[in-house]
Amino acid sequence: MRHINGFASAPGSDGLTPWTFERRELRPDDILVAIDYCGVCHSDLDAIASAARGRGRLVPGHEFTGTVTEIGSDVTRFTVGRRVAVGNIVDSCGKCAACLAHQENYCHAFPTLTYGGVDRHDGLPTQGGYSEEYVVREDFAYSVPPQLDPAGVAPLMCAGVTVWEPLRRWQVGPGSTVGVVGLGGLGHLAVKLAKALGARVTVFTTSPAKADAARLLGADDVVLTTDDAAMAAQFDSHDLILDTAPAPHDLTPYLRALAMDGTLCALGITERLDFDPMALLIGRKSLASAGSGGTRATQELLDFCGEHGITADVEVLPVGEVDEALERLRRNDVRYRFVLDLTA
Amino acid sequence: MRHINGFASAPGSDGLTPWTFERRELRPDDILVAIDYCGVCHSDLDAIASAARGRGRLVPGHEFTGTVTEIGSDVTRFTVGRRVAVGNIVDSCGKCAACLAHQENYCHAFPTLTYGGVDRHDGLPTQGGYSEEYVVREDFAYSVPPQLDPAGVAPLMCAGVTVWEPLRRWQVGPGSTVGVVGLGGLGHLAVKLAKALGARVTVFTTSPAKADAARLLGADDVVLTTDDAAMAAQFDSHDLILDTAPAPHDLTPYLRALAMDGTLCALGITERLDFDPMALLIGRKSLASAGSGGTRATQELLDFCGEHGITADVEVLPVGEVDEALERLRRNDVRYRFVLDLTA
Repeated sequence: MRHINGFASAPGSDGLTPWTFERRELRPDDILVAIDYCGVCHSDLDAIASAARGRGRLVPGHEFTGTVTEIGSDVTRFTVGRRVAVGNIVDSCGKCAACLAHQENYCHAFPTLTYGGVDRHDGLPTQGGYSEEYVVREDFAYSVPPQLDPAGVAPLMCAGVTVWEPLRRWQVGPGSTVGVVGLGGLGHLAVKLAKALGARVTVFTTSPAKADAARLLGADDVVLTTDDAAMAAQFDSHDLILDTAPAPHDLTPYLRALAMDGTLCALGITERLDFDPMALLIGRKSLASAGSGGTRATQELLDFCGEHGITADVEVLPVGEVDEALERLRRNDVRYRFVLDLTA
Repeated sequence: MRHINGFASAPGSDGLTPWTFERRELRPDDILVAIDYCGVCHSDLDAIASAARGRGRLVPGHEFTGTVTEIGSDVTRFTVGRRVAVGNIVDSCGKCAACLAHQENYCHAFPTLTYGGVDRHDGLPTQGGYSEEYVVREDFAYSVPPQLDPAGVAPLMCAGVTVWEPLRRWQVGPGSTVGVVGLGGLGHLAVKLAKALGARVTVFTTSPAKADAARLLGADDVVLTTDDAAMAAQFDSHDLILDTAPAPHDLTPYLRALAMDGTLCALGITERLDFDPMALLIGRKSLASAGSGGTRATQELLDFCGEHGITADVEVLPVGEVDEALERLRRNDVRYRFVLDLTA
């Protein structure tokens, strides 16, 4: 086993501390990645809170970039020295309909999570990217376009692909009108990607202060959700709305803002979805949900971002300041994603 | 004004009694229809119950067939003697995006309902098809294929088009797998139409007694929703499920029975939709709703039924026995739709 330095949660604490833990030696289809940047995802907060109530230690982090430093004997896609990225899943059954469709994020046998999961082969718990190295099957690592800043690439691996898949699934392109609810890690990338795909983009926000920021990101329109008249004026005007707001809220105003046959895709809300069924019926609308990304869409996203020069807007902190990043993220004090520098 | 004989609700009663009421004289774009058969829709029960609590009288009925007996001076589509059908809307604004797309059922200014509505021109209340004659704009009347039994055609106009539109919207055809929840007026037509479109059809029912009936209608598979193992075996196997059950129930098992990117379309549930959001997220599924039909889809349905020899399975009663039909429908004692004979 390899001894790895990282930052881990501990029972009874909401902070992280340095921890040395073990990773497996490389299997024939594994690569070893020296991590340079790891994004801080909202779901890391939930995992840390959950671990604080448990008994074991947990290394978070499931959107990171790094460099290949060693390869297994059967590896064909990567060579030592290549810049790669890893997202929030690192393995899947490979046999079910979802895996065969390269939608391993929906593997019927449940995909192996990058941290907080259990390796399908050795049964050991997976630990994440708030650490110096990661061992991963080459099929779940991705080529990073060399022209992109790797710190800004890291959040593409979870926040990015989570908004990318619905943009592609609902065929957003020139002529589409896309709404984005919430302007955080997911929302700001949804604006950039929808614009790059050719759509007209509306940002829905509760905060007047975010209007200028939304326009800087490329939004064509900004609607204050507290302005009832402005919301009513959005009736029948969007083909797709991506709702990235993390807390439960009434979806009815967004359903009304959809055009006929439009789709509201709720990302990251797992407790309950509240809405008036009549707002779904009138105009034959759909409420969908989605999460994370499959291997094909993830590489497609990175290639698209390479062509269009898109990365996340990030605030980079040395990994030693991880607790500050977590604390500020809890207060939503970040534009738009914290990224930990593992080389600092 | 014309004096028309029909059957109407009365305040304080859940039964109907003969009533003579007025309809407008023909406007230039109107036709006069001598009604022969009118279906008894589940929503008629709600309207009668609501009228019982009110002060005025109401003639229900919004799926009927008849013969043109007079035409207005500008009418071009119909001549006297033609067999026509009318559904649950009889007018709309004609100018909004929905109307321009021939989806007048979703008219932004709300369509004029066949009964219980208000005429857009003279402001008078509309009264329905439990009556001897109806005056309607020719644009909201439809040609009935002569080879079809008009009693079985009547329910196509509401129950039929309500299931037809989602079958078309979600592009059901050869290779599709369609589920139908509930085997009443809507459900039995959904089975026939989905089969005729080339789909493989599963009927989900709570009642073992309905299994044979479902197969007679053309269902390939019948699943008892009370059989947990059978339900679990449906995981990831349907492109579209039409849920026609009228009372609120947990939609989660049906979401699980959808294939990736599949859609569960809830028809006729307007109070609330209960489900686990994770069942929507895993497999990137959609929950939709729909109701009634636009003019283009309605004529398309009648033409399709003419080609395929499809009508509703009906039990015909003379209009004088309307109270028996209503009482039995309240007990769900009907296969699959009551139709009132107005000529009896």
